[in-house]
Amino acid sequence: MTSLTQGLARRIHTARIEHFSEWEREQSAKVVMDTLAVMVGGAMSELREPILNYLGMSPQKGPSRVLGTDWRLPPELSALVNGTFGAALDFDDVVSTMPGHPSAIVMAVVAAELDLRTISGRDLIEAHIVGLEVSSKLGVGLTKGYYDRGFHGTCALGVFVGVAVLACLRRLDEQTIAAALGMASSMSSGLRCNFGTMTKALHTGWAAQWSVHAVNLAQSGVTACTTALEANAGYFETYGDAASDTEAVLRAWGEPWAIRSPGVGLRNFACYNALQRPMHAVLDLKSRVDLTPASLQHLSCWMHPGGMQGAIYPRPTTGFEGKFSLQYVLAAGVLDGAYSLQTFTDEAVNRPAIQALLKKIEACEMDVCGTTDPQAIGGALEGAKGFVQVSVTLASGAVETCRLSVAPGHPARPLGWDELHAKFMDCARFAHFPVAKAEAACALLQSLETCADIKEIADLLVAAPASRDAGKAAELAAAQ
Amino acid sequence: MTSLTQGLARRIHTARIEHFSEWEREQSAKVVMDTLAVMVGGAMSELREPILNYLGMSPQKGPSRVLGTDWRLPPELSALVNGTFGAALDFDDVVSTMPGHPSAIVMAVVAAELDLRTISGRDLIEAHIVGLEVSSKLGVGLTKGYYDRGFHGTCALGVFVGVAVLACLRRLDEQTIAAALGMASSMSSGLRCNFGTMTKALHTGWAAQWSVHAVNLAQSGVTACTTALEANAGYFETYGDAASDTEAVLRAWGEPWAIRSPGVGLRNFACYNALQRPMHAVLDLKSRVDLTPASLQHLSCWMHPGGMQGAIYPRPTTGFEGKFSLQYVLAAGVLDGAYSLQTFTDEAVNRPAIQALLKKIEACEMDVCGTTDPQAIGGALEGAKGFVQVSVTLASGAVETCRLSVAPGHPARPLGWDELHAKFMDCARFAHFPVAKAEAACALLQSLETCADIKEIADLLVAAPASRDAGKAAELAAAQ
Repeated sequence: MTSLTQGLARRIHTARIEHFSEWEREQSAKVVMDTLAVMVGGAMSELREPILNYLGMSPQKGPSRVLGTDWRLPPELSALVNGTFGAALDFDDVVSTMPGHPSAIVMAVVAAELDLRTISGRDLIEAHIVGLEVSSKLGVGLTKGYYDRGFHGTCALGVFVGVAVLACLRRLDEQTIAAALGMASSMSSGLRCNFGTMTKALHTGWAAQWSVHAVNLAQSGVTACTTALEANAGYFETYGDAASDTEAVLRAWGEPWAIRSPGVGLRNFACYNALQRPMHAVLDLKSRVDLTPASLQHLSCWMHPGGMQGAIYPRPTTGFEGKFSLQYVLAAGVLDGAYSLQTFTDEAVNRPAIQALLKKIEACEMDVCGTTDPQAIGGALEGAKGFVQVSVTLASGAVETCRLSVAPGHPARPLGWDELHAKFMDCARFAHFPVAKAEAACALLQSLETCADIKEIADLLVAAPASRDAGKAAELAAAQ
Repeated sequence: MTSLTQGLARRIHTARIEHFSEWEREQSAKVVMDTLAVMVGGAMSELREPILNYLGMSPQKGPSRVLGTDWRLPPELSALVNGTFGAALDFDDVVSTMPGHPSAIVMAVVAAELDLRTISGRDLIEAHIVGLEVSSKLGVGLTKGYYDRGFHGTCALGVFVGVAVLACLRRLDEQTIAAALGMASSMSSGLRCNFGTMTKALHTGWAAQWSVHAVNLAQSGVTACTTALEANAGYFETYGDAASDTEAVLRAWGEPWAIRSPGVGLRNFACYNALQRPMHAVLDLKSRVDLTPASLQHLSCWMHPGGMQGAIYPRPTTGFEGKFSLQYVLAAGVLDGAYSLQTFTDEAVNRPAIQALLKKIEACEMDVCGTTDPQAIGGALEGAKGFVQVSVTLASGAVETCRLSVAPGHPARPLGWDELHAKFMDCARFAHFPVAKAEAACALLQSLETCADIKEIADLLVAAPASRDAGKAAELAAAQ
């Protein structure tokens, strides 16, 4: 029997960008652009102030940047902050076989590393596709039991993403990679009960920070179990269940690459991924009928079984909770007819009109939605789990229904460069980020593969915005 | 129903040294002395060089000391290194209801904190007893399923220890404690497959580091689920099993304090706790009969069910693996007639005489050993799990047997101040630590409760030993 840990280390060690098709490489470049957009936006999110407070408790000097700011930190701390900002808007990518959000971890580790060496666009794409592959195929082997039990894939599998990224960037040997995977196995954690709080974003930061930590320790000579994934009292034994299959991981490796299938979903709205479809459905209904708080008698939303697992706030009171509230996003859709980053502020969630609307809304999981419905928008496409149905009963008595299988941004309905550009500029605006710099970064990102040193792009993503906490940020910069 | 997380936060917040008896406070002082001994020793263990390499990768300046060295680091990094050194010899305390080794985490967090504020001996004792209480009672509620599945209690429950310690030292309010407990719930990890590698010691370091991190983030305003222990997709749901009982945690709180029962075990030998009894049994036999490699025909060791769970190296090849090898410690006992820190070097494990002896040794778990045996040494005492039996068949045909229920160092056969003093000086010698300073520290530790500022003790535990890696250590010190 091949050792899973050793086999995985070998595959990480030998993967090269030449193994990936042009289409796969372009997908990677698109996801990188999407991820950098939400990281820049996240740097000015509600997480900014607490993170500044935290950094101020023990100011640290270092070479590694935090994207969207002018801060410099030691590499592990930079990975922490970049990863946290990358997840702060709940707007980053999703890979269904993880399930979780890997690319903010990739970019956080890359951001921490890019002032320590020269990383080309091709190096980044290679590391990105390999990082996604590791978490996706570990997820295939583990199956979803660990997630159902309570673990958040982004943190629990994410720590392996960062190890793979650094292994590629630093061209680590197989034994060092295996030791780092052994340590990462002892760092896998993160609970879904923290959804709707700032700690969810920290999960991404921790995955990034701990993976840099594990690799640095392994390179320093700290030993670990080099069969940790499959060992007794090892990763699969502890986090897996009866359905898990260690052999599936290597069998599925690159067959095809995860960047191709299941592919990477990009979000149109800055909230919990499972809410994207009902949100699109409400907008569709709003475009077809006169749907307003006044005209609405009743709204009913059916989700596929398990679809409400992370939708844990039926009556949210903060913007963060709103990101995990199915009822809230439905109400906001009816009221506003559009979603933006402003939808998820405390003020927006607490509007009296929303509270009134919540009484008219019911949502539940329905078995029928677990099946495929070829009539649903998007059709019955591979990789889309069932469908959602949103029905509105109007004051007139009329009933209108929308069934949606595949939302825009899903791998089967990918966003184009134009849409990504629009998302990038939206995030930049939200962050009061200089428009010219954002435009210039977008231009470079669209031809990422030809970039000789991605510092050129990162240098455009530096900003010290005049903001509510400029004083603290300046203090931090001055301490350095 | 009382919220477990909130209730625990309240109990941590309101605990005071006045609640503990004189006997309990003296026990704490003894454990503190034992823990500092193994931390000073651990600073010169095999972990020293890799940790120096690691620190050299990104030299950091900070106020917090590393005991047994002259290094100063940022608080979180200091907690990491102190905790790692505290576990490096596998010689620190054990609490059976955790099960794991909490006091190195306590002292690592205290060491990271003691240059930031004034901590008296009484403050330390209070924080220590509360820290032990939190992990012990969480262990009571969780029961041992999480450990059996693969988690290492020292890391998986240890992160709560550090949160409690800091909550006491910083007099945090209940909401901040609850948020820190919520974050700590998302950091619980550490796998037993890493036993016998350096990563096991890192588990202690991570528990300490992450708990400081969680508290600092909570104080900075990062929000977390404040019902994380009992929430859906929370700690008990994810790490617990059918036998777990959230309500047992608060019901058992202080009834009695864990420092009294089950009490804190201190180790006589620097290796896996479950090996202590068979080692004492071999020494007992050796004192009674002519037991040598030449005279031994066969040695048989019976362990209680589960007793060999962590004894995962029947044929060890490194000192670290030897610490988790029942067969090796039995062979070393026959050959050497004594155990010391030298027993667990690579050289000692690889002696040809050991290899020859291993062939004569068999060990297995036996149901009968799960019962109590009043005839065993130590008798049938509460808290001792069954007994072990070591039988030797000599070349003469004679058979001699030792049954042992309670080893010295077990809470029911506590070590006296003299024995602790001897262990402290052993560790100091191992670390080439100045004898006069070690003696002075011992003297102060024996009256810990009267110490106005424990910096006085810590200042004695500073050493820059002339050693194989003095160059690297000097480099690190110069960078600061």
